[in-house]
Amino acid sequence: MNLCGFEVGLEQPFFLICGPCAIETEKLAMETAAQLKDITSRLGIPFIYKSSFDKANRSSHNSARGVGLEAGLRILEQVKTEVGIPVLTDVHEDTPLDEVASVVDVLQTPAFLCRQTNFIQNVAQAGKPVNIKKGQFLAPWDMGNVVEKARAVGNQQIMVCERGYTFGYNNLVSDMRGLAIMRATGCPVVFDATHSVQLPGGQGSCSGGQREHVPVLARAAVAAGIAGLFIESHPDPANAMSDGPNSWPLDRLEELLKTLTALDQVVKAQKLLENSL
Amino acid sequence: MNLCGFEVGLEQPFFLICGPCAIETEKLAMETAAQLKDITSRLGIPFIYKSSFDKANRSSHNSARGVGLEAGLRILEQVKTEVGIPVLTDVHEDTPLDEVASVVDVLQTPAFLCRQTNFIQNVAQAGKPVNIKKGQFLAPWDMGNVVEKARAVGNQQIMVCERGYTFGYNNLVSDMRGLAIMRATGCPVVFDATHSVQLPGGQGSCSGGQREHVPVLARAAVAAGIAGLFIESHPDPANAMSDGPNSWPLDRLEELLKTLTALDQVVKAQKLLENSL
Amino acid sequence: MNLCGFEVGLEQPFFLICGPCAIETEKLAMETAAQLKDITSRLGIPFIYKSSFDKANRSSHNSARGVGLEAGLRILEQVKTEVGIPVLTDVHEDTPLDEVASVVDVLQTPAFLCRQTNFIQNVAQAGKPVNIKKGQFLAPWDMGNVVEKARAVGNQQIMVCERGYTFGYNNLVSDMRGLAIMRATGCPVVFDATHSVQLPGGQGSCSGGQREHVPVLARAAVAAGIAGLFIESHPDPANAMSDGPNSWPLDRLEELLKTLTALDQVVKAQKLLENSL
Amino acid sequence: MNLCGFEVGLEQPFFLICGPCAIETEKLAMETAAQLKDITSRLGIPFIYKSSFDKANRSSHNSARGVGLEAGLRILEQVKTEVGIPVLTDVHEDTPLDEVASVVDVLQTPAFLCRQTNFIQNVAQAGKPVNIKKGQFLAPWDMGNVVEKARAVGNQQIMVCERGYTFGYNNLVSDMRGLAIMRATGCPVVFDATHSVQLPGGQGSCSGGQREHVPVLARAAVAAGIAGLFIESHPDPANAMSDGPNSWPLDRLEELLKTLTALDQVVKAQKLLENSL
Repeated sequence: MNLCGFEVGLEQPFFLICGPCAIETEKLAMETAAQLKDITSRLGIPFIYKSSFDKANRSSHNSARGVGLEAGLRILEQVKTEVGIPVLTDVHEDTPLDEVASVVDVLQTPAFLCRQTNFIQNVAQAGKPVNIKKGQFLAPWDMGNVVEKARAVGNQQIMVCERGYTFGYNNLVSDMRGLAIMRATGCPVVFDATHSVQLPGGQGSCSGGQREHVPVLARAAVAAGIAGLFIESHPDPANAMSDGPNSWPLDRLEELLKTLTALDQVVKAQKLLENSL
Repeated sequence: MNLCGFEVGLEQPFFLICGPCAIETEKLAMETAAQLKDITSRLGIPFIYKSSFDKANRSSHNSARGVGLEAGLRILEQVKTEVGIPVLTDVHEDTPLDEVASVVDVLQTPAFLCRQTNFIQNVAQAGKPVNIKKGQFLAPWDMGNVVEKARAVGNQQIMVCERGYTFGYNNLVSDMRGLAIMRATGCPVVFDATHSVQLPGGQGSCSGGQREHVPVLARAAVAAGIAGLFIESHPDPANAMSDGPNSWPLDRLEELLKTLTALDQVVKAQKLLENSL
Repeated sequence: MNLCGFEVGLEQPFFLICGPCAIETEKLAMETAAQLKDITSRLGIPFIYKSSFDKANRSSHNSARGVGLEAGLRILEQVKTEVGIPVLTDVHEDTPLDEVASVVDVLQTPAFLCRQTNFIQNVAQAGKPVNIKKGQFLAPWDMGNVVEKARAVGNQQIMVCERGYTFGYNNLVSDMRGLAIMRATGCPVVFDATHSVQLPGGQGSCSGGQREHVPVLARAAVAAGIAGLFIESHPDPANAMSDGPNSWPLDRLEELLKTLTALDQVVKAQKLLENSL
Repeated sequence: MNLCGFEVGLEQPFFLICGPCAIETEKLAMETAAQLKDITSRLGIPFIYKSSFDKANRSSHNSARGVGLEAGLRILEQVKTEVGIPVLTDVHEDTPLDEVASVVDVLQTPAFLCRQTNFIQNVAQAGKPVNIKKGQFLAPWDMGNVVEKARAVGNQQIMVCERGYTFGYNNLVSDMRGLAIMRATGCPVVFDATHSVQLPGGQGSCSGGQREHVPVLARAAVAAGIAGLFIESHPDPANAMSDGPNSWPLDRLEELLKTLTALDQVVKAQKLLENSL
């Protein structure tokens, strides 16, 4: 599949979706985008900038939700044109999809909404590639039905993304088998190393997270074999507006990506044995 | 709390939300409504008729979705006025809420959408009592945050509903502890005995279900202590448009309710010990 | 099935297995046994006294393990003959089974050991009724194989006991469906309301527990329909040697049992609907 | 830690525990041992031969259990002396430990038995290195207590082994975070790629398995960072006496190990980022 000008798939190096969880300020967005562009260029990693204009499903209604649609899109457009990189954002049940699609290169749908037929089809119809996050309640083989819904409206640029599966209360587990199982959809499989280490609702009125497991799960997923990787990174995670506890420090990103790139090369240098048994 | 003219809570007999999963035809709706009114009148059970005009989150986009908004509301209105019973229906991310709220007595929000802040608040703002289904991925104590969102827009008539929790792949488990834990929200707690026995995605392109566990779980939940009970019932479950495998046969409903009513009386005849340790 | 002189099964009132988790002192054992005999006599509940001489699988090797085999059996014998009630104790991988079987009326096997073929068969061969606890990792339908192992050595007096199923880390869930599913073994099904509310390993070097959920789960299980109920009770749970956090206060037991007995009568007054669909 | 003459740990290449699940015949044992020695020598992988003389916890008592203690030990001794490789076998609740310890180089304890204090301490006291499999019901941080029990009797050569965690009914999940978490025990962490793809009880009277996920999980675990890897391999898995469905074909082992070795080198070439946050 061609995505934002680069080929993606299990025969290609993994592409990276990365950025701060939320668009906090224009300054933060522009600076992180530039830094991420530098890092990924040095490492030869195809890169898409990700940031959210609205956190629409926070644990508590008292939590900050972000800069909003208008300011958010303006900033993403600036990132796109001035830094010169493709941008992705997530859309919600009431987002004006055409407006967002007119700016961003890739749309992303939230895990909680993966079963809403109209929503998935409306997003797919906006004519942009879509990264569909798998619900925390959905078996990997059940993504086939979700992908079919999206393709049924004519969009063939669909990605599927694992972000952790419900594991008792206030915890998620990343089943690495699922990354292989979802290849059957024919879509590029993406692993979200950030939300997979979330502890949903784990801090009472907001979700906790375990940043220290990001490199563990990212290495595991790359070695399992994926087309793309999703990591949220922030220059100051302790003060991030959202998802700080599971955000990866920007100044530690390059060393993480170096290892991941080397692992990716090893895995993709030969055929995946699970496909030839 | 007063709901549709009857008092509900742990000091009152349980109220029943019941009907065929989907509004299939006017005839089916009117006939089942009349029968259900008869049965519940005989047993002294406060009753709200439930049926859906749109199945908005089916496993596959090839499955039937229902009669649609216009026909659905017309039929629900007919049930309400001609049979003389309150009616409930579920709304979705793109439902015209005011239109639905102008007809039905109670709105219900789907489990998958319980974390969508705007959606929950929009539904709560429609000014009707709301039955909020707990997500299959949400710990019982995390419903506190959800209820707060709904109350924040001024609606005090909120119910919380357990409908099974993610338990490995393609299965749900009903944690009876959760029914007691959710009392801390201050809301009437409802147990959905129908969707709790769903096997999500269990039949490939649609969900399976285990009807034989409906009485087991309903008895258990009533004995655990609940304000309300939700059961989908159909005169011919094998040919139901939706959720047939976990639908309860209408001709077996009265005997089920008799046992449940007797259990309810026993439990509510004395103080719940868990509250006085 | 006849057990210790009383008939047990879904057509009979539930029998109760109860006592302090561990045999702490002769005094505690004799006093609790006498009190429990009084309470259950008043309520007409067939009763078996339970207490352990050795806690063989504690979280940490620093925790107290009990009075040991010799003193334990002496005390159980005293309870049996002086109070005049049948007694049950649990045995472990290295327990001298014949010695224990010469004293107690019922043997119990620990959940962790339910898959050890030799152990299960050795216990079954000791010639006493056996209460086999289902592993925290075993599906209810998989108890069929376990029961077959026990019956294969000629023991037909086998009971199966639910005590909670692994649910994420450090938590258990009680699947009430399992109580109905295990009826297919042909064995009386027992629900252990004490260990089902354990939080395994939840306090670092020992397990935690949620005593407040004992009545909730006990009511639910009795209403689901069981042959027997297992509850550990202690006059001073806060100072119990073992399993204090999930032990039920002895002075609150009678009111709990009253409700449970009334629920049991309601459920068993008619046919279980799940059996006649 | 020094194990069988080679250093093991996160600064060393992973060591491999491998062999057919059960000792079926002397011929099979000698042939597979020789082949495995060849393969691992070529790849520079420290190797320990594994095979079981008794399958003591099979789903059904009708399943084959193996050649038994006497024949098993004779064959393992032959493998050890004639092929010249260290051997490991698993012991059970009633195994004569000294007899086994007089032959094998490493003892292994079954997952189901990880909480049996006496058993763990008896095995540790036999004076050989011990590979302790983590129970399918035990959180990774709770292995600390288990290791302490083993060390308390004076054995410092303890390994901890992940083999999948209970995930709903008849399924296991491998939480890669657990591999990092168990490093806190100070023990070499081993990943069992064979039993992690077991479907417990999944075929009615025996467990199923998903051999195709062995390479996926093995790659993921090696990339997460482990000291040792456990894989059962058989020249003819379809006809293996035990665990065939999750056994890896011997003729595909070398290509699998090549990839794993390359991944291992990448991961261990730099510091693990999770340790320096």
